This record gives sequence, structure tokens and C-alpha cells, in this order.
Amino acid sequence: MKCINILKLIKTNKIDKYKKHLYIKGWIKNKRNTKIGIIFLDINDGSSINNLQVIINPKKIKNFKKNIIKITSGCSISLKGVIKNSPKSNKKEIHAVNIKILGYIENPETYPISPKYHSLEYLRKISHLRPRTKIINTISKIRNTLIFSLHNFFQKRNFIWIPTPIITSLDTEGSSKLFKIKEKNFFKKKAFLTVSGQLNLETYACSLSKVYNFGPIFRAERSITNKHLAEFWMLETEIAFANLKQIITISKNMLYFCFKQILKKNYEEIIFLSEYHKNKNILNNLEKIINKKITEINYNEIIKIIKKKENFFSSKIKWGSNIFPEHEKFLTEKYFKTPIIIKNFPQKIKAFYMKKNIDNTVSSMDIIFPFVGEIIGGGEREENIKKLIKNIKIKKLNEKKYWWYKDLRKYGTVKHSGFGMGFERLLMYITNMKNIRDLIPFPRYINYLKF
Amino acid sequence: MKCINILKLIKTNKIDKYKKHLYIKGWIKNKRNTKIGIIFLDINDGSSINNLQVIINPKKIKNFKKNIIKITSGCSISLKGVIKNSPKSNKKEIHAVNIKILGYIENPETYPISPKYHSLEYLRKISHLRPRTKIINTISKIRNTLIFSLHNFFQKRNFIWIPTPIITSLDTEGSSKLFKIKEKNFFKKKAFLTVSGQLNLETYACSLSKVYNFGPIFRAERSITNKHLAEFWMLETEIAFANLKQIITISKNMLYFCFKQILKKNYEEIIFLSEYHKNKNILNNLEKIINKKITEINYNEIIKIIKKKENFFSSKIKWGSNIFPEHEKFLTEKYFKTPIIIKNFPQKIKAFYMKKNIDNTVSSMDIIFPFVGEIIGGGEREENIKKLIKNIKIKKLNEKKYWWYKDLRKYGTVKHSGFGMGFERLLMYITNMKNIRDLIPFPRYINYLKF
Repeated sequence: MKCINILKLIKTNKIDKYKKHLYIKGWIKNKRNTKIGIIFLDINDGSSINNLQVIINPKKIKNFKKNIIKITSGCSISLKGVIKNSPKSNKKEIHAVNIKILGYIENPETYPISPKYHSLEYLRKISHLRPRTKIINTISKIRNTLIFSLHNFFQKRNFIWIPTPIITSLDTEGSSKLFKIKEKNFFKKKAFLTVSGQLNLETYACSLSKVYNFGPIFRAERSITNKHLAEFWMLETEIAFANLKQIITISKNMLYFCFKQILKKNYEEIIFLSEYHKNKNILNNLEKIINKKITEINYNEIIKIIKKKENFFSSKIKWGSNIFPEHEKFLTEKYFKTPIIIKNFPQKIKAFYMKKNIDNTVSSMDIIFPFVGEIIGGGEREENIKKLIKNIKIKKLNEKKYWWYKDLRKYGTVKHSGFGMGFERLLMYITNMKNIRDLIPFPRYINYLKF
Repeated sequence: MKCINILKLIKTNKIDKYKKHLYIKGWIKNKRNTKIGIIFLDINDGSSINNLQVIINPKKIKNFKKNIIKITSGCSISLKGVIKNSPKSNKKEIHAVNIKILGYIENPETYPISPKYHSLEYLRKISHLRPRTKIINTISKIRNTLIFSLHNFFQKRNFIWIPTPIITSLDTEGSSKLFKIKEKNFFKKKAFLTVSGQLNLETYACSLSKVYNFGPIFRAERSITNKHLAEFWMLETEIAFANLKQIITISKNMLYFCFKQILKKNYEEIIFLSEYHKNKNILNNLEKIINKKITEINYNEIIKIIKKKENFFSSKIKWGSNIFPEHEKFLTEKYFKTPIIIKNFPQKIKAFYMKKNIDNTVSSMDIIFPFVGEIIGGGEREENIKKLIKNIKIKKLNEKKYWWYKDLRKYGTVKHSGFGMGFERLLMYITNMKNIRDLIPFPRYINYLKF
């Protein structure tokens, strides 16, 4: 007999077609005994974040005393039963005919995922078992929708997926936060884990026009914060002939598209998150983006706004400074109350490949979200060979290492632009989770490498 | 005026709707002068593998002498023109009204991607420019269809994408071909690049039931062959409650689905590959798979077949041996003339997590393709805690390191199965390319780390 997934049974409007016995497999999430001897089980097979209720009448089950009485939370079972509408709710329930225990719980009293509440800190210590909780199941479902929505968005627009290399000999932005690979004799040169696929992606943009990548990125980031991981996933895109305005439009459309997909496919998960966080704004935070409430503003203007409120901040700021998290928080959560796109940063705080404007700024943009901070960074790439070399020299980088990057400007150069988006950071905003370590199955960060 | 992509113009049946001047941007792939002064350009913007022909009548173009005469292959241009049906073929052509050169070629005589034929070996040395060739554009398009088809296949069946970690402290199969990460003080323990995400993926299969991953995988493989990379991409899936038969069915359906998608979306690319390789069988090789011509056979039977032809092979084989590439070649290309699924390998040549059959074999399967060799490997995972520990001991692995993997068997264990597929290997079969270094944009292998 074919096994039916629980999501199908929860969602069905036609229980009539299941008149005969049906067959399910899954894990017990909860067990309740009643005074009259009836037992209620909540069963889940991962297909839904919600459980299906199973009703057991001991008198109607073979081997009840021998086996079924031993069922505890966490056991895996297979079950034959009849589906009925619950008399007390609009849910369905299964009346068990036959149950088989597939896997017991060794020492039920000490099972780490008992049905009670567990803190996220506790669950992080058992990352191999935490997908058994409703909260991590919920995050997995939303993460899955987000990745597939990103692929769908770019595929529908005829972008080509390009896998950029993970092991690299080049440090894209001259950053020092690189993981080194030990096997010197393997590559016969210094090898690092990539901090960005952008430069490699540009080689394909300068022939296929519209390309994107989605892959893991590494930073040997030593500061311990709730927004940093040593290993995370990044969406990067590069587009030939595109300017700043066009990539801003694409990045916004990408966000609208993904958020719509999540509301469409994960409405129940979003509602659960509102309950979980006791925060009614989660749905609203998504709808705000879908309704295109994103503020676009120049760096110059941002500095003026912050300077007016100077006394409220611990970090002083002037033209040419980085914008600090406390300012980002103020701007997105208090002043504009929307995500903000900050355009045209000073050249001296941005990377060598950024295209200079006529003043001392570069044609760049950062998208800053409330609660999370920077999610997207991008801009126009310098396509003029002379200006590019000048920038490499200003930033004191080793020009020789960029020979192939320079070639793109020597041979049929074109204006082009692109951006990168931190995948788990966007998930933080969507799910309202406070720690990025809960948004990736097995987080890696300083002093932590488990599972 | 909005720029139109060249694919749209090549494919359109209604040139009437483009009556007015249209606007395109791209790179010149070829330039031909005629005796009567007309110039033909082949232009490409990466949207199609085919070029669009542009006809220039010098008398009708402003600034012709000053600018346009300097156009060479590789230049980037923007162009205003009128689309017409070619009088000589069923193709379209653009009659130029206005041309602007966006980027010249520095020293056209030495431009590395001249319109002549370039060997694949030569192109590998200029991996940053090779996407400008028709062959690498073709591979990029097919690779893109393959990745999106894989995601589509699993998403349609409600599998959840799980990003398994790249940096790991665990060596999945006890292999020595691991890249080590240098920063000892970062993680405070030995850190490696992953050789498989399987064990981590199993933790999610044991709660979400159907999960998959697609990400980069690393092997410090020192042998130089045309089928090995130090960094490649792998599709992995793990399915709770599934047995060997079921994962064989899923893996075959996955192949049928992907191959169909490629024939549907990349028919022109496949035809071009037939011309490129002067091999009419390429289309046929794909259709064979779609028509489900895959042979399923037990390891025991394979040994009998090979033993009968023993004298033809340089490596002797007996029950318990690995099957060598020369045998795989014979079986897939001569004996069966199909891909083969070899089932139930001897336990001693397979990993500790494989589920033992009643004899000395494990419930496993390898899918071997003609020309390429192993593409898929998988099987049932040992779900019994006692048997798993016994296997860990037999393979002389450090049992302590697998504490969390053992937990999956302690708490509500279920039968489960999965497989992994080498992405670039499958692409090798589809494209009939002979060297795997041409199937990934920036290959990494022993003594080679460029771009």
C-alpha cells in the first residue's frame, strides 16, 4: 500500500477519496492519554510544519499492550487508519487501525527533543536533532522557497547560472579575512576560500550578458555577532550594459518576487513565526516590501540626516565615514521605517572595481534592511582600463594578479553592473530570527566547528 | 530606446512588429568585407549561441570612415537598425542605420579569441575569455538547464533544499583526500573541506523526510585524469522510509526529466555539439536515456560477465574487487550499450554507512555511464544502531566523531536511502566533451589554480 504524505491529508478537501484505509509514516511529536483510555498522537513526517492527529482506541488495535503502549514522543511509526473530519475542529484526524513502531527512543526521559519548549540556544547544541522542531522545520521550508524563488526569478529572465570557484588564489577586495588552504604542494601557490565570486562572474557577463551565481562564501571573521558566519551563501549577479538604476530595479524586483512567493507558499509558516515571536508585524514586514516601500537615497543626504541627530549616536560620522549599525538601525527603523537603498558612496570606502562618478563618489548601492542591516551591495564596475589600473594603484593592490580582470577591459569592454546578496541575512529579515546561526543548518563561526 | 536581446530577434516569426528601428548591443564575432563595399558583421550578446547578421552599407552610415571602419572581431557595439528577412536563407538580418563602438580590441592582431578555430587546450589557458566562444557558450547554456532542471525535479516532488556545510571537522568516508584549512586558531580544531554532505543531509531526512542538496565538493585528488577535479558540484538527496528500489526509480526519473528538459530547451546547442564533435550520436545518446534504456544488474552478475572475457582486460578481477574503468567501458559501450546500474556491491569495498544485505553485500547502487564512468552512487543507509557501530569498527573509524550520526539511530530511527551525483560528470556525457575541465568555468586540479 502506498504511503501518503501528511501535508496532502491536512490540505485535502475531499476526505471521501480516502474512504478505505490509508497508510502513513512519520514521527510522534506528542502523546496524550485520556481518562477513558483513548490515546491521542500528533504525528509529523516533515511534509508540513503541522501535525496530524491520530486517535487510538486500545480495544481496536492488535498487540496494543505488547507494543503500542511503549510509544513515546520521537518514535517513528507506520500507521494504517481511516481519515475523518474532527468533530471539534475543521481539522482531519486519523483513526488508527494498525500501528507499527519502526524506531524507539533510547531513554525517553532524556530524549533531547521532548515535546516541551526548547530555547534556540539549547537547540543550537543539537543541530542534528533540531530539524525535528516546528521552528527549524518552518525555517527550512522558508529557506527552500527563497532559494527556488531566486533561481526562478533569474531563470525567467534568461540569466545563466555560473558556478564561480570556491578555492581561489585571488583576494577579491584586498580583505584579510581569508581562510587559507594548507596543501601548498597541491596547487603550488597560496590558496584561499573565496570571499566573492564577482570578478569571475564578470568574465561571463562580458560574453553572456546576464549571469548569476548562488554558492557558499567564506570570511574568517573573528568578531562574534549574531549577524556573522564564517560560511554563508550568497546570490551574485552581473549584467552587461546595465547601469546603477537598472540593477537597483532588478534587485528590488527580485525582492518583491521572492517575498510574494514566500507569502504564497509559506503563509502558514509566517503565521507560526508571528506566534512564535509574539510579534504581529512579521506578515506586515513582508507586505511592506511587496508594496514596494523601499527608500532610495544618496549617501550625501544620509550624512546630512545623521549629522542633525548627531548627539543621539555613540559613533561620530562625517562625509567619507562608513555608516555604522546604530545609524542603519535609526534610519530603517525610526526615520524612514522602510529598507533603504543608499547610493553613491565615497570612493575611499569602497572597492577598487567600483566606477567613479564625476565627484569623489562611486556609482554604488547598499540595501539596508531594518533589524538586520546590509543585505545587498553592488554597483557599476569600472570598465575603463586606465581608470581601473589607477584604482588598483590607489588601493595598493598587486596589479599583476588582476591581469585577466584587466583583459575584460582591453578586449571589447562594456559598461556593466552587479550586486551580491547575503542569503541568510535576507532570511533573518523574513523570519524575524535574531541569530543568523538559526538560519543555516550547521553554522560555522569562530571557535565553533561541530557536526 | 529599449535594447532587444538577440535571441528574441533570431526566434521571432513576426518581424513586422519591429518595423521601426530597433536597438541592440553585443560583441562582434566576425567581420567580412565585400568587393562592392558592403560589410557583414556577426553580432552576439550571449543570449543565443547563434549570431545575428548585420549588414552595413557605408554610404548609409554616419561617421563611417572615422569610426566604423575600425571595427574588429571582439569589439563591443551598440547598433540601431531595421530587421529584415534574409533573401538567401530563412534567417533574419539587421540593416544598420547607426553604429557606436563601445569597446575596442587592444592590438586586434593578437586578440586571443580571433574568429578562427581554437583548441580546447588553448582555451583553457584563457578561461576568462573562453566564454566568448560558441562552444563554451553552448556548455554554459546546457549547464544552466541542467542545474535548473535538477532543482525543478526535486521541488516539484516537495523535497526541501538543505545547504550542508563546506567546512567540516569530519571525514565522511575515512578518505585521505581532504583539503585542510590552515587557521587552527579560528576553529580550535582540525578543519577540512567537505567530500560529501551526506551525513549532514541525513539529519534533515530523519525529520523532513525528503531533502536534497546541490553544492561544491572537494577532493585533494593527486592523479591527473580528464575526469577528476579538486573542486566540483554534487547533487545529493536523502529520503526517509525509502529503500534501494525506490531511490533507483527516483534517480532514473531524475535523469529522464533532466535529459528531456535539455532536449526541449537546448536542441540547437545539442545539434551544434554534433557538428563540433563530428559525432551524430550525441542526440541519440540523450534519446536513449529518455527512452529508459538503462540496464539494472547485480554486482555478482557483473563479475561473471567480466570473468568470461578475462583475457581482454589488463586488470584481473574477482568477487570483492572494485570494477575498473576498462571494465566499465566494456560493459556500457560494448556489452550492454547502455548506462548500467550495478547493485549490491561487496561490503568490504563500500563505506561504513551502507546497509548490509543478508549475504556479504550492501544494499547499494552505482550508475555507470558510457564514455564517462560513475555518475551516481548511493544506497540504503544502516539504520540499526548496533550494526552501524559494528561497521564503524570494521572500517577502523573513530566512533566518537560519529556521536551525532549515531543519535539519528538512537532516536526514532527509520530506514532511509540516498544518492549523490557528480554534476560535471553528467554534463560530460550530455555534451560529449572529453575533458571535465571544460565543463566548469574555472577548473581546479593538481598544480593548477588560476583565475
